[in-house]
Amino acid sequence: MTDHEIFELGDVILQRGATLRDAQLAYKTYGTLNREKSNAVVYPTRFGGRHTDNEWLIGPGMALDPSEYFVIVPNMLGNGLSSSPSNTPPPYGKARFPRVTVHDNVRAQHRLVTERFDIEKLVLVTGYSMGAQQTFQWGVSYPKMVERMLPFCGSARTSTHNFVFLEGVKAALTADAAFEDGWCDVPPTTGLRAFARVYAGWALSQSFYREGVHLEQGYSSLEDYLIAFWEGNYVAKDANDLLAMIWTWQHADIGATPDFGGSLEAALGAIEAKATVMPGETDLYFPVKDNEYEVSRMPNAELRPIPSIWGHFAGSGRNPEDVRFIDDALKELLGA
Amino acid sequence: MTDHEIFELGDVILQRGATLRDAQLAYKTYGTLNREKSNAVVYPTRFGGRHTDNEWLIGPGMALDPSEYFVIVPNMLGNGLSSSPSNTPPPYGKARFPRVTVHDNVRAQHRLVTERFDIEKLVLVTGYSMGAQQTFQWGVSYPKMVERMLPFCGSARTSTHNFVFLEGVKAALTADAAFEDGWCDVPPTTGLRAFARVYAGWALSQSFYREGVHLEQGYSSLEDYLIAFWEGNYVAKDANDLLAMIWTWQHADIGATPDFGGSLEAALGAIEAKATVMPGETDLYFPVKDNEYEVSRMPNAELRPIPSIWGHFAGSGRNPEDVRFIDDALKELLGA
Repeated sequence: MTDHEIFELGDVILQRGATLRDAQLAYKTYGTLNREKSNAVVYPTRFGGRHTDNEWLIGPGMALDPSEYFVIVPNMLGNGLSSSPSNTPPPYGKARFPRVTVHDNVRAQHRLVTERFDIEKLVLVTGYSMGAQQTFQWGVSYPKMVERMLPFCGSARTSTHNFVFLEGVKAALTADAAFEDGWCDVPPTTGLRAFARVYAGWALSQSFYREGVHLEQGYSSLEDYLIAFWEGNYVAKDANDLLAMIWTWQHADIGATPDFGGSLEAALGAIEAKATVMPGETDLYFPVKDNEYEVSRMPNAELRPIPSIWGHFAGSGRNPEDVRFIDDALKELLGA
Repeated sequence: MTDHEIFELGDVILQRGATLRDAQLAYKTYGTLNREKSNAVVYPTRFGGRHTDNEWLIGPGMALDPSEYFVIVPNMLGNGLSSSPSNTPPPYGKARFPRVTVHDNVRAQHRLVTERFDIEKLVLVTGYSMGAQQTFQWGVSYPKMVERMLPFCGSARTSTHNFVFLEGVKAALTADAAFEDGWCDVPPTTGLRAFARVYAGWALSQSFYREGVHLEQGYSSLEDYLIAFWEGNYVAKDANDLLAMIWTWQHADIGATPDFGGSLEAALGAIEAKATVMPGETDLYFPVKDNEYEVSRMPNAELRPIPSIWGHFAGSGRNPEDVRFIDDALKELLGA
């Protein structure tokens, strides 16, 4: 009953030193690779998301039209489909899953693209949130390969404030002793619910709640929204998987790419792709300001904030107006 | 070793119906009440704060100069000095402490001011955060009595987003089973630390962390700041007291004042005081926009945002520039 495929990575030596043995990259493709192999797009997944969560941006008549492009959606390591705490056998599963960086993810994706599909150029790399962080990393790691990029609602380096926000959700989850430092056999549901409730304040904007947009989504009250949407989403997730992805997120930094010596600016300057960088105008943890600085250091980039009160969720595909705005920008960039 | 006094309120029937028996209001005064009783100021406390936490705004040469004004600082119910879960004997202590509203607090403070000091007019009511919420309530409940008001970093009604933020910190605290639904004899330190870590992202702005201001405060790293300042502050607090104050905060709404039938607008329109309303420009949970609306419905109010990257902490007294900005506004208002 899988609707995705697996690329066997073998034993992968990770950026921080551990070896991820028999590593697997789960992915799905949409559309057909043309004979010239000139229509490939890479579209990595977000925090807690899977390839299916990317599909709202793919479809007939949209920029990512499968009749025109070959869209590869690689699942992020840690997301439960690619190698993750929840599916890695001992001794490396659960709390012992090694630290995986955004750089590690993009190296694995590059192997998929080149080894399995023999693709040399990507028309576009795009992604939302942590998918945007992977997009930036693609632009830095493979500048000659990435022709265009459109990272939305994500930054090239996780800011300190964003790091602190993540400390909060982590602390809420792990305050539940049932988590057993990652060795639990039963989900720590109280911690997962707390995680969800903390997250609910961050993912949307003050104005989203002020205008009661949550009530227009089929929820009968604020509490109904917090339980049905937020807790419902996170009680179904694996706690170790979430924490593995959060570690990846907290340490996202294109400056840490080998050869850039920790310099964000040097890494940004190495990006050759034509880029449209799209923060959500009211995003609380990937604010416009971080992208503004990054764009100022990129050779060929435009900043185009998404005018939305949906906060970080402006890039989640839930608000039709935001979807249209992002899709229009993709069409423009792909036409360029 | 107390440095404050107690006003015995007796049995208080609260707005939501419970009776708080043998209720006590802890307070401290600064300066001397003049013969005409025309120099009194009320300056209620903030969430988690005590009268000592207000003292940075009182002093020689400042607007609230004790040689000129008689400043009464009443401690909020639930703060550990006034009647609170932590100091109320059975059957009403701990998890059974009754629900106290901002309205209840201000009624108690009004009794202190009128019964103990026989004061009929207040030159000024001012306060930070939940102290600002009490300030708004003073203006609504006693419009003829409050000549001027300067609420800073707080709103007349807690917004939905603010409510959600508080759901997050509550969930983090109560995810620790050691809390025992409020009946713990030993502090739930894991939960209190989680509470602190969630709070750390909300109380300051993205720019505060981006510019590394936390490192200029005597902390050697982000983690040092999170432990020394944030966890250090909250592990010393009583969990039930925090939750009692959060309930008060979540339900703050001047529209719920009797006679206004739930209408925020009607309540705002009833305020007669000359008001300067001062949100922090980068406050994440009491954003400028909420005050902007409130000021538009107040007969005699000016909106004056504090130009600061200190987020909600712009009103905390920790940043000298913000202190000066607030103090200047107080001087201007008191001179009017």
